[in-house]
Amino acid sequence: MAWRSKRSVSEPSAPPTVVQKFGGSSLATPDRIFNVARRIAETRQTVERVVVVVSAMGDTTDELMALARAVNAEPRSRELDMLVSAGETIAAPLVTMALHGLGIEAISLTGFQAGIRTSRVHQKARIVDIVPQRILDELDGGRVVVVAGFQGATEDLDITTLGRGGSDTSAVALAVELGAQECDIFTDVTGVMTADPRVVPSAHVLEMLDYTEMLELAALGARVLHPRAVEIGAAYGMPIRVRSSLEVHPGTLICRSQGMEQRPVVRGIAQETNVAKITVIEAPDRPGVAAAIFEALAAEHINVDTVVQNVSHRGRTDVSFTVAATDLAHAESVVQKAADSIGAEGVQSADDIGKISVVGSGIMGTPGVFARVLSTLAENGINVEMISTGEIRMTCIVARDRVADAARALHAAFELDRA
Amino acid sequence: MAWRSKRSVSEPSAPPTVVQKFGGSSLATPDRIFNVARRIAETRQTVERVVVVVSAMGDTTDELMALARAVNAEPRSRELDMLVSAGETIAAPLVTMALHGLGIEAISLTGFQAGIRTSRVHQKARIVDIVPQRILDELDGGRVVVVAGFQGATEDLDITTLGRGGSDTSAVALAVELGAQECDIFTDVTGVMTADPRVVPSAHVLEMLDYTEMLELAALGARVLHPRAVEIGAAYGMPIRVRSSLEVHPGTLICRSQGMEQRPVVRGIAQETNVAKITVIEAPDRPGVAAAIFEALAAEHINVDTVVQNVSHRGRTDVSFTVAATDLAHAESVVQKAADSIGAEGVQSADDIGKISVVGSGIMGTPGVFARVLSTLAENGINVEMISTGEIRMTCIVARDRVADAARALHAAFELDRA
Repeated sequence: MAWRSKRSVSEPSAPPTVVQKFGGSSLATPDRIFNVARRIAETRQTVERVVVVVSAMGDTTDELMALARAVNAEPRSRELDMLVSAGETIAAPLVTMALHGLGIEAISLTGFQAGIRTSRVHQKARIVDIVPQRILDELDGGRVVVVAGFQGATEDLDITTLGRGGSDTSAVALAVELGAQECDIFTDVTGVMTADPRVVPSAHVLEMLDYTEMLELAALGARVLHPRAVEIGAAYGMPIRVRSSLEVHPGTLICRSQGMEQRPVVRGIAQETNVAKITVIEAPDRPGVAAAIFEALAAEHINVDTVVQNVSHRGRTDVSFTVAATDLAHAESVVQKAADSIGAEGVQSADDIGKISVVGSGIMGTPGVFARVLSTLAENGINVEMISTGEIRMTCIVARDRVADAARALHAAFELDRA
Repeated sequence: MAWRSKRSVSEPSAPPTVVQKFGGSSLATPDRIFNVARRIAETRQTVERVVVVVSAMGDTTDELMALARAVNAEPRSRELDMLVSAGETIAAPLVTMALHGLGIEAISLTGFQAGIRTSRVHQKARIVDIVPQRILDELDGGRVVVVAGFQGATEDLDITTLGRGGSDTSAVALAVELGAQECDIFTDVTGVMTADPRVVPSAHVLEMLDYTEMLELAALGARVLHPRAVEIGAAYGMPIRVRSSLEVHPGTLICRSQGMEQRPVVRGIAQETNVAKITVIEAPDRPGVAAAIFEALAAEHINVDTVVQNVSHRGRTDVSFTVAATDLAHAESVVQKAADSIGAEGVQSADDIGKISVVGSGIMGTPGVFARVLSTLAENGINVEMISTGEIRMTCIVARDRVADAARALHAAFELDRA
């Protein structure tokens, strides 16, 4: 995370401020925009200073991407940013107009106008600075400030976007910069759940999670909140509440771990089917070889996930890792070049796989969790192709068509099914 | 026109540059965007420096306006500007991507990025300054620059729009600022015609017009080119060519009058049906009374057209004028208040009227033109409700359902029918 707030969250001078982010499905129609405006109006009754961050309406971003691909199969990222940023630039004034209709003073700002300065990496830009003066002036003037999420601008005034889920990042970064009490992420689900309820019917909403747990769940496929937003929240201790824009429910509060309270070791099950595996076969086992592969991928902004390197035989080793299935074609050509240059035997890939993970702060310190994951999967006849473990999670790569079975089995095995 | 270019058009240092503007119907689909890109590519083969100005695709602006009205019956103009500017911000990168697909280096810029600084009158902003440095840098770098038309930004970085037809204004102003050789306005018609061909089948394309003729035709309803764009062209002597994006045809060149050449006195017939009439009855006939009415309308940015004031009787007079029919409801309430404050008897209005005009540089100096207009209309049983004349035009207000008949009769009477 490049951006470092100049402000301390606990700075006592910051007047009570709330940042609320509304996602695209909450804004998909004029009726839903009204509904969002009413939620903001309710907040405004008790909080003087309200900043709202909005995503693009419904499928606008996808529609703009489709238009781009209709005129150019490989549009350049700078032009894509200018194009797709329009989605949020449309949503922000519409929410503002709806607030005006409720008699609430409000003003919309683009990311640039809101002072969000980013790096030059188009499509995946990082926030490097926030110059909040305009927002502060508007708040001082008694207005609700509606900021177009997902977007910012470089030093050269070029428009950038923060990548998918970037509106979450805009919201949490603004909450930190403005010294807000809390950042509310309104979405179309009730909160963060123990598993995907479409796959595990007994899944239920978690009342509270710590940042690392949320980070793992988000990174592992729980799309409710973008990992970078959680990272920023964790770095500055900004409480983030994930809640529904459609129902009245406290949702899930993501905050610093509350210590030693008694709670289940495994907090949630995450799954991801947009996964493909690449294996570099018989790479020379010497320093710098794996680095050459991963640096080439990083240079193309391809995220690498689970990595497994087998033990070396006769100075050669297989390196396997996963990437998003949607990145597979691009990743294969990058890896093939790198494999050639380091003198590996070949490159194989598979895209019929998925990921299943169990997450919880106490996993590492609790004997038997890893064993119970593997025995549960084995009892259900699910073969594990790769394993990776982290401080608070265990991830297994399994056949894509068994991911849902695995989620249900693990949800039950770790007693997450609702009583 | 607030904006004054710091540059002289004839400045010899400006390298050959062409500005081309493409309207919304020329960009309505990915196929049409490709077509536009091919036209630009052809130009680029012979001209080093090409600046393109684009409108929003097809009906985008109307769709965005409809969204606005779905969330607020009377959206504020600042928010409307942020909203509708997105239409051009979408079109510019799409054209740029299509150019990339043809192997042409290009970059899109918003109005703000292109240095277009405007007044704060949202929805009808005026260009106050152009800071062309970014455009010049990109041209120096060998790129075609695709600018989002219709939009600019204030000193405070708020987004503004220039009003309907504002992309024409963006294009001509940029052409002047950049010292371009010519400003091409590509549209879905072949050029400026002697009359609306949907009404007058014998109408044909004019090869050349002077600025004042075009100005009158544009102001009188020929929607091919925005009047403010013509004003700027006239002020700086920038040649403007109106031509088709779909066919290869030189179109109509609008430039300074070529002197005494032999040509028809009446160059074209213009019509307009978006017209309504307001009459202030028995207003006191003393200085400042008419001004009170028109100042009140100007304060609301309502354009007043043809004005007729009858001779005074017993210190009282009727003042009639026309406004756009779409402005009628708004104008009526403004005029009613003004009429009350000056002690007029009442306000009447009618919106079943239309305007028919004949335009040509020599009209005033040619005896019998006015008489021939009136006798032609009389012969066709068309009653004239109001008359106004200008240096190069004569306008008659007639019943809306006779406007087309009047256009055909006058086109024939002034020998504009194609041989």
